[in-house]
Amino acid sequence: MSDLSDLSAATAEFAAVRAWQPWHTPKNLAMALSGEVGELTTLFQWLTPEESTAVMADEKLADEVRDELADVLLYLVQLARVLDVDLAEVARAKLARNEHRFPPPQN
Amino acid sequence: MSDLSDLSAATAEFAAVRAWQPWHTPKNLAMALSGEVGELTTLFQWLTPEESTAVMADEKLADEVRDELADVLLYLVQLARVLDVDLAEVARAKLARNEHRFPPPQN
Amino acid sequence: MSDLSDLSAATAEFAAVRAWQPWHTPKNLAMALSGEVGELTTLFQWLTPEESTAVMADEKLADEVRDELADVLLYLVQLARVLDVDLAEVARAKLARNEHRFPPPQN
Amino acid sequence: MSDLSDLSAATAEFAAVRAWQPWHTPKNLAMALSGEVGELTTLFQWLTPEESTAVMADEKLADEVRDELADVLLYLVQLARVLDVDLAEVARAKLARNEHRFPPPQN
Repeated sequence: MSDLSDLSAATAEFAAVRAWQPWHTPKNLAMALSGEVGELTTLFQWLTPEESTAVMADEKLADEVRDELADVLLYLVQLARVLDVDLAEVARAKLARNEHRFPPPQN
Repeated sequence: MSDLSDLSAATAEFAAVRAWQPWHTPKNLAMALSGEVGELTTLFQWLTPEESTAVMADEKLADEVRDELADVLLYLVQLARVLDVDLAEVARAKLARNEHRFPPPQN
Repeated sequence: MSDLSDLSAATAEFAAVRAWQPWHTPKNLAMALSGEVGELTTLFQWLTPEESTAVMADEKLADEVRDELADVLLYLVQLARVLDVDLAEVARAKLARNEHRFPPPQN
Repeated sequence: MSDLSDLSAATAEFAAVRAWQPWHTPKNLAMALSGEVGELTTLFQWLTPEESTAVMADEKLADEVRDELADVLLYLVQLARVLDVDLAEVARAKLARNEHRFPPPQN
């Protein structure tokens, strides 16, 4: 069983138990995803490139980063589920198209 | 083998072959993720809740939605990788914390 | 004297007094703007279209909306300033181009 | 007459002539604002801090930056208008609160 389908089932169960489905339209979940990405962005906004690379060395900041990454994935998974999209499949297909769009450099 | 760790390895290989690592700081990948979520948002901005629920019935729009969901996941996976964060693990941990934050209604 | 140039001068003075200019690169200010728009988005994400129209009737929510709108404008003004862009001028020019892109319906 | 109230009146007229008001709920305009900020973010995502500071020296990129800044301001103005918020006033009030939150350093 894959991580993404496990998470998809778990978030669906979570929402169903709380009767949150009426709020979970694709439009609302896209907004929620966007809000979480905004919180993630905030953590990096004043950092230099080098500080951003070392961000996980600060334990408090590392916890915040992990928390926001989790929130982004959870809303992405829920959005894909209400749209009946297989996230892993579309990501693999996109990666294959990118292989053609950006051919590796020749030596 | 999990979908997320497969995608993580595939995107790392993709970037390495093209020597893109210098651009893939956490800060830059957070911005790229944010830009892709902006493109996803654009697809839903003028839709009613009902239209957003039916969005995949329009074949052209459905392709755009799948494409943007893929881009969001791919940048999220790359960001987690450069931060050395196990996305599936942090998402499962967050879901467990949410179980406590939002207890199910009692009957 | 215009509102936008007044605000531009006031935010520049605010940053200079605190010696914040090294952090106020265009890249960082674009991220800060994006983070504030994320906070604004969060206020609307679960609302129906009708609830979003009535949002200012809730005094607490109205204060949050005003606060986030202010933050978005303040970072937008600062970003335009470090880029030496006249915001009012580019907005008027864009509106003029939009008049041609979206001609009014004929009766 | 202020730039912001001029732009507010002009965008309201623009939308009214095209009968776009039904789409211009606060929720939808917040999403549109967020999408435009995503496009702006994309222009800066791979730049170093120094490259971001020099972005207007590239004429093509400078045009894109001006275009996105204009779009962000135009949607922000429209959102404020449908919410009946005076943008200049809330920004000045926020700046005054920030003076207290972040007192200037003492010499």
